[in-house]
Amino acid sequence: MNIKITGTGSYIPSNIERNEDFHNHEFLNSDGSTINAPSEVIVKKFKAITGIKERRYAKPHLTTSDIASFAAKKAIENANISKEDLDYIIVAHNYGDVKSDSIQSDTVPSIASRVKHLLRIENPKCVGYDLLFGCPGWIQGVIQAEAFIKSGIAKKCLVIGAETLSRVIDPFDRDSMIYSDGAGAVIVEATTEQQGGILAHEAATFALDEAHFIYFGETYNQDISDNRRYIKMHGRKIYEFALTNVPMAMKSCLDKSGIDISKIKKILIHQANEKMDEAIVKRFYELYDMEMPDGIMPMSIGKLGNSSVATVPTLYDLILNGEMDGQEINKGDHIMFASVGAGMNINAIVYEV
Amino acid sequence: MNIKITGTGSYIPSNIERNEDFHNHEFLNSDGSTINAPSEVIVKKFKAITGIKERRYAKPHLTTSDIASFAAKKAIENANISKEDLDYIIVAHNYGDVKSDSIQSDTVPSIASRVKHLLRIENPKCVGYDLLFGCPGWIQGVIQAEAFIKSGIAKKCLVIGAETLSRVIDPFDRDSMIYSDGAGAVIVEATTEQQGGILAHEAATFALDEAHFIYFGETYNQDISDNRRYIKMHGRKIYEFALTNVPMAMKSCLDKSGIDISKIKKILIHQANEKMDEAIVKRFYELYDMEMPDGIMPMSIGKLGNSSVATVPTLYDLILNGEMDGQEINKGDHIMFASVGAGMNINAIVYEV
Repeated sequence: MNIKITGTGSYIPSNIERNEDFHNHEFLNSDGSTINAPSEVIVKKFKAITGIKERRYAKPHLTTSDIASFAAKKAIENANISKEDLDYIIVAHNYGDVKSDSIQSDTVPSIASRVKHLLRIENPKCVGYDLLFGCPGWIQGVIQAEAFIKSGIAKKCLVIGAETLSRVIDPFDRDSMIYSDGAGAVIVEATTEQQGGILAHEAATFALDEAHFIYFGETYNQDISDNRRYIKMHGRKIYEFALTNVPMAMKSCLDKSGIDISKIKKILIHQANEKMDEAIVKRFYELYDMEMPDGIMPMSIGKLGNSSVATVPTLYDLILNGEMDGQEINKGDHIMFASVGAGMNINAIVYEV
Repeated sequence: MNIKITGTGSYIPSNIERNEDFHNHEFLNSDGSTINAPSEVIVKKFKAITGIKERRYAKPHLTTSDIASFAAKKAIENANISKEDLDYIIVAHNYGDVKSDSIQSDTVPSIASRVKHLLRIENPKCVGYDLLFGCPGWIQGVIQAEAFIKSGIAKKCLVIGAETLSRVIDPFDRDSMIYSDGAGAVIVEATTEQQGGILAHEAATFALDEAHFIYFGETYNQDISDNRRYIKMHGRKIYEFALTNVPMAMKSCLDKSGIDISKIKKILIHQANEKMDEAIVKRFYELYDMEMPDGIMPMSIGKLGNSSVATVPTLYDLILNGEMDGQEINKGDHIMFASVGAGMNINAIVYEV
């Protein structure tokens, strides 16, 4: 039995927030002190490190479950299956539905139930649940779908990653420029007709010292004491952590798969930060005494920012649809998915298309 | 291979909130209108329907992840395993960590990562994630643990249900008296030495018309317009839905297991509402043309209220520890776990102890 992705879909929000739109922000250090540089310079430095020129925000009337359902609908159509044949709907996210006029996360009912409702799926045997696993949540959802199929409790699963990080950002924090909104979805199913599919996976949670590297914290503006919290990160610690541990997890995954590294055509890595992603993939190849091949790592972060769980499925969908310049993935190709994020969680999949 | 619960633990918060403590509340109808009865009468009626005399609230300095870790520690000790041997930590909840002075849910990092951190587990291969599935989340976590074990990606899983509903209740809503805080945990593992274990499961998501029967809504007090939302339910709709669908799901599960209904020693049902639970189990037996046996349905709701995902594992732990008067479960007994809640989700497991 081969377990394959038979359909993909994504939703890219239409509101474009350009770097210039942050020029009027007053950015502060984490201790509340002023940064000795004009916003234009801060934004320019930000661009040089992260590669982000612009990012997408969902329109105010839309929530995570709405955009999740848009991506899901496309994936179901692309897989050419009946929505009523789905056994599971797995939705990876981190903050639930945060309405644009609210500071509260809404997770009851689950986002999966809302998506199922929006898709008008009748079959009650189609079970929907939400999975919280930081940015690697979508890859983890695919791993769980594989387990359900292997164990015999599912044949077809819809796995979605959707997030509206624009609703949880501190305007005084430079890192707020990283975050974006988006949704990506795939259909994972068992197939006897096709070769390949998921060949191996790796997953890990580093929580002893690292659990709170990404956290929910107050604004950097100490004049504000409203008790409201936002997504926050210890960027340097994450960078060092990721550079040490992600390449090793990717290697462990590749070695399990039995596929030679020379066969890997593309690495679709969570779009966290361009410089960090490049350093991770370079170090991964160094573990095999190789140089990173040109074009191995398609990047969408420049235009789409970091939409957490949505980056990897969106990137995969864009490439398959020929919407990433100079990038293609073809039947029979071996590729890797890899991610790192809050938890701190890391995972990877070796996949034959 | 038999997949069994090899250890249990629970944490019952020490703050007791008695029905009398609600006598000074001003209860309102969902349209904001006054209820034509003194609070004492409303509370008395509430008690007659739900069976709840008192409920437990976590102390202000504790969060869902704290109480989850307390229950988890006991389950690990009870199973007599090393915490470093766990492959998965699955935490079912619905609202994440809500600090007592906050209205925001905190789910980054995941509650599973926080629990792993609090338990000081070093092994990064122990993967922690959160599962949102309404009140049936803990049973669903056991179903997922079973799938991971069957598919070969795990041997030992810690499955926790933990919730602090006291942090999300509207004081003007009579239903606020239902909700409680608590945590229950089990170790699920493959064993070749013991018989029995999980024999069958059933799970369903009804989202076409039912998705928003339990929801996040504003206070019933229309003089307050702070945009803050609370756990809310359409009680009558839920009652009718549950009475129709839960007995059928339980029957489907039992029939799959091949176990005769006469063999079922106990039914541990989600402690939602005493009258509703009794009506569900009565109707379940009616599907087999039987009367509900005396004592088949242990109830903890009178003293512990409805702590969502925590009710079933807490009840199981209390019975095994001889802390439920006149109730016992012994090796070789066949029992059922069953739940219904937000989503609307329903599930059940037939289990041989």
